[in-house]
Parts: sequence; structure tokens; C-alpha cells
Amino acid sequence: MVSATHTLHRRFCHHVWDRTLVPVLTVAPGAHVTFDVTDASSGQITRQSTASVFDNYNSKRVNPVNGPVFVDGAEPGDVLVVKLESYVPSGWGWTAIIPGFGLLADEFLEPVLLHWDYDRTGKTPLLFGDHARIPLAPFAGTIGLAPSAPGQHSIIPPRRVGGNLDVRDLVAGSVLFLPVEVPGALLSIGDTHAAQGDGEVCGTAIESPMQVSVTLDLIKDHQIRMPRIDRPSHANRPTRHGRIWITTGIGPDLHAAARVAVREMIDLVGQQIGLASEDAYMICSVVGDLKISQIVDAPNWTVSFHLPAAIFD
Amino acid sequence: MVSATHTLHRRFCHHVWDRTLVPVLTVAPGAHVTFDVTDASSGQITRQSTASVFDNYNSKRVNPVNGPVFVDGAEPGDVLVVKLESYVPSGWGWTAIIPGFGLLADEFLEPVLLHWDYDRTGKTPLLFGDHARIPLAPFAGTIGLAPSAPGQHSIIPPRRVGGNLDVRDLVAGSVLFLPVEVPGALLSIGDTHAAQGDGEVCGTAIESPMQVSVTLDLIKDHQIRMPRIDRPSHANRPTRHGRIWITTGIGPDLHAAARVAVREMIDLVGQQIGLASEDAYMICSVVGDLKISQIVDAPNWTVSFHLPAAIFD
Repeated sequence: MVSATHTLHRRFCHHVWDRTLVPVLTVAPGAHVTFDVTDASSGQITRQSTASVFDNYNSKRVNPVNGPVFVDGAEPGDVLVVKLESYVPSGWGWTAIIPGFGLLADEFLEPVLLHWDYDRTGKTPLLFGDHARIPLAPFAGTIGLAPSAPGQHSIIPPRRVGGNLDVRDLVAGSVLFLPVEVPGALLSIGDTHAAQGDGEVCGTAIESPMQVSVTLDLIKDHQIRMPRIDRPSHANRPTRHGRIWITTGIGPDLHAAARVAVREMIDLVGQQIGLASEDAYMICSVVGDLKISQIVDAPNWTVSFHLPAAIFD
Repeated sequence: MVSATHTLHRRFCHHVWDRTLVPVLTVAPGAHVTFDVTDASSGQITRQSTASVFDNYNSKRVNPVNGPVFVDGAEPGDVLVVKLESYVPSGWGWTAIIPGFGLLADEFLEPVLLHWDYDRTGKTPLLFGDHARIPLAPFAGTIGLAPSAPGQHSIIPPRRVGGNLDVRDLVAGSVLFLPVEVPGALLSIGDTHAAQGDGEVCGTAIESPMQVSVTLDLIKDHQIRMPRIDRPSHANRPTRHGRIWITTGIGPDLHAAARVAVREMIDLVGQQIGLASEDAYMICSVVGDLKISQIVDAPNWTVSFHLPAAIFD
């Protein structure tokens, strides 16, 4: 049996979650759908943009998602299965420090915009000037369903039905399981990243337009509290080779500890490589990983931040 | 020049941090020291113990550390460099659910004690009955210096001078940098683990006596806020191969989100493998990893918990 194949152009996008949005596509389980995703600024940022773009930045247009897609037969209490088949990156992306946004927003007050022109095939890494080489690791930051709660809901925070999860493990070959809360599930996808570390600490990844192809399926009557993912081996994460620099934050509050660990890494990169703190902060966001090393030695938890030193070779 | 070599027997241990403890060994920078570390119960748990050991468990004797070692020339404001040269595991260890301790202490009320007899060479993985194979990945959970604050300080929580960090990256080949707060630094090491995941979620790892060999060095007048680590490649983490199961917790509180993600994984392991929740909880603690996938999409953060499915093959 040949499954139906559909393409959803980027003009079919929305900027809030709302169960009353009219579906732009209706498919049966088994369907193959390609989402033609624009960048997280909805095109406000172009190859020609400078940091002054943030002087008149329309935050109501950020993080567009393509959809919603109505899946025939999906009902509340089911699980929608999103198999991530492939990503076709565009070769251009941006990273920014946006005032008021990011883990250290209180310390980084000025806008910064960085462009990446990169090899779409991933054969050569993304270049941060002469300083660092970032492996291409594309994924969609936002994959979600309409929540059952009525009204419009911000696209920024993720929820139990998914959305702006920003889980870097949503790579090709991964399978995402989302709890359905409304008839038809109402799936949308956007916010594609050429690379991002666990944490996305500066608030942006390498934001990059991309085509995302998925196969959809349904598990009837299956309860999960939160999104689940089945991903291929970690062994193919390209940043696993070479020595890893690790900084820590220790204390009773995980969020505060994470801030300290990232602050420490920005200092370390400054000392070792001579990067300005803004540059180090963006590098941390696109390729550094926040981990909870222990969460049991009360009252102080250990958060660690990992950066692969090989990116600077 | 041949550096001095010393061995610190397990009888030279202490159970609180205190800057007035008398050093059991004084060494010069460059010295090589082997710590003969007992288990985290100070020998209260033996190969013959059952869960009833927790009926009369002396919590003042937990987490012993060998030391303190006085490092000649170390002064407040310096950094002590602890190069982890090798671990020689004993071949026996234990994992437990200890009432009142662990991330889900409110849900797991009954004590459980599990023994591991394992291949010290790591050629064959540690066996969890017929159900799971855990790769040997030895490290010391507790490496720390005396804090400058006077008085006795609990050995359980880590601090900026290190201590019970429980960072699984402190493997052989890693280098730990600790800020010195007192003359001589006063280094102690203990709490050796045959394996542990990021989070150590049930409160214990595979607690296992072990010999730890380190080389000590000093960086004069160097400020760091918190411990730092330089570790060898992640590529040699043996659990990176095969598919990874990932559960998530989403919300404004990282600690609560971590609890949900771990709860979800316990459910998933129960569904997929048929393990009792206590067993799944302990498996999660010794080989599952807590990560902060994003900490910027306010107000909801994404915590994810990763378990390598290949352990069940």
C-alpha cells in the first residue's frame, strides 16, 4: 500500500495554539507529510538583517508553525506518533541574543545577530568565524498538538501536548509520541534548528528554514502524561569526540545552578579561546549541553554544562 | 623526577567536612595518591545484607571519605587539580531505595537492597537479573576540599569546594579543578560508583568499594566559582549505542519536571519490559540521564530523561 504524501507550504502557518483553528490539511494515519518551515522570526530576519532588526521586532509573529493538520480518527486519549523521516536544511540560519530573552537575560542587555551560511549536506561543519566549528544536527524545535483548553495559547512555552519542546533529540530517525487532547489531534511543526545544545541557553539556536518530512500514525486509547521520544543511538552525535569541558553550578535551586554553570562556561571559553562573552554565550546555546548530574544530595543539586572542546580545534 | 606515591587506607576516613580535621597525609604538588575507598555505608552493608539493614542504619556513618590530604603550598585562592588516573573496582556493589531519600521518596516508601557481583575488568556488563545489562563506568561520587566556614558540615550536599558532586563524568582520564578555601586544601575522596546516570535519581548508584588513584597539582592564584572538569570524549560512553528512550517533564519548575520525567520512564520500563516500579526506579538511577533540553521558553522548561534501550537486549 502506498501512503498518501502531502506538502504543507510555509504560508499555511499560525502563531498561537488554538483548538478552533481551521485545519489546512486532513490526512489518514500512515500519511507522509512534508512541512516547508520558515525561520523562527517568520521572515522578519533575512540574510541582510543586522541587530537593529530587534528595534522593531514583532514578537507576535515569532515561532510560526505549519498546520494544523487534522488526523482522521484521532481522538482525546489517543497518542499521535510522529516519525521524523528527514530534514532538508536551507543552508542559512541565524543566532541572536534578543533583549529580555534567554537564561542570562539580566546580564546580556544588547541585541546581537549572527548569520550562518553553511553546507546543507553537513559534510563540513558550520563555521563561527575562525573560532569554532559546529556540527550540523538538524531538528524541529516545535512539534505539537492543539491543547484542549479553549482560547488562544502562546506558542512560546511547550505543554504536555508538545509544542516548543526544543528537545535536540528530535532528529531524523526519532519517533515522537504526543498525547491527543482534541479530535483530529491538530498537529503543527516549526522552529527548525541547524544545531542546538541541551538548554538552548541564550534563547536561540541556529534558527534555519528547513523542510521536515514525517510519517504520522495513531495509537488508540493509550495514556501518556507527557511527550515521549524514541531516538536513534547517541553514538552518532558528532560532538561526542574529543575532550569535553564541564562547568558546574551547585545549590538548592536547579535554575540558579544552571545559570551559574553557564556563566562559568562563558568565563572558561573567554579564558581559553579569547571569545567575547556574547560570542561564548551563543556558542554555549548552539552546542553546549545542560545536565542534571545529581538531584538527590539534599539540599544542594549539581547541574553541569558540557561543551565539546574539539569545536575549537 | 619521580613523584612520590602514597596510599591512603580506608581506615583513614571521616564523615563530616571540617577545616580543623587533622590531615592524615601531607604531599607536595605532583604527588600520586591512591585512595582505598570503602562503600557509601561505611561497611554497614555487606554481601550478606538484606533490606532489613535499613531498620538500624546509622546515617551518621554514610558516605565516608578518605582523607584529609594536606597539599603543601595550597592556599585560599588557588585551584587544586585532581587528575583521575585510574579506578580499580572491587567486583561487588549495591543499590538501594532508602526511605526518605531519592527524587521520588514520597512514592517509594519501602526499603529495597540490590546486590551486584560483577566483572571487575568491565569486559562483561553488570547484570540486573535477566532483565538488564549495565556497562561498568566507575567514578568517585565524592571528591572535595574542606570549606572555609568553621564547624562541621554534612557530607551529603556538595558545595563550591566540591564534595558529593556525583558527577558521572569524573571517570579515569578526567581532570577536576577545585577552588581552595583553606591552607593545604584538605582533599578527601570517597563514594565510589561502578555506574550512575545523570541525576542518580533513586538516591544511590551502584555503590562499590574501589581503589582510586590520582595525581595532584596546584594552580596558584586562579579564581573559579565552582568545580570544573575536563573529561575525555563522550564517545566512549558505552551506553551511547542503540536506541534511546526519552521521557519528558514540562513546566515552570525544573525539579517538578524532573520528577515527572522519571515517573514517566518508570511507567515506560514497566510497560515495555514488565519490571516492577522499584526495579525500574533503580535502573533509572544507575544508567538513565536527566537533561535540561531547554530553559528559555518561559514559563515552561523541558526536562528529559534518557535511558539506553540496549541495556534490555
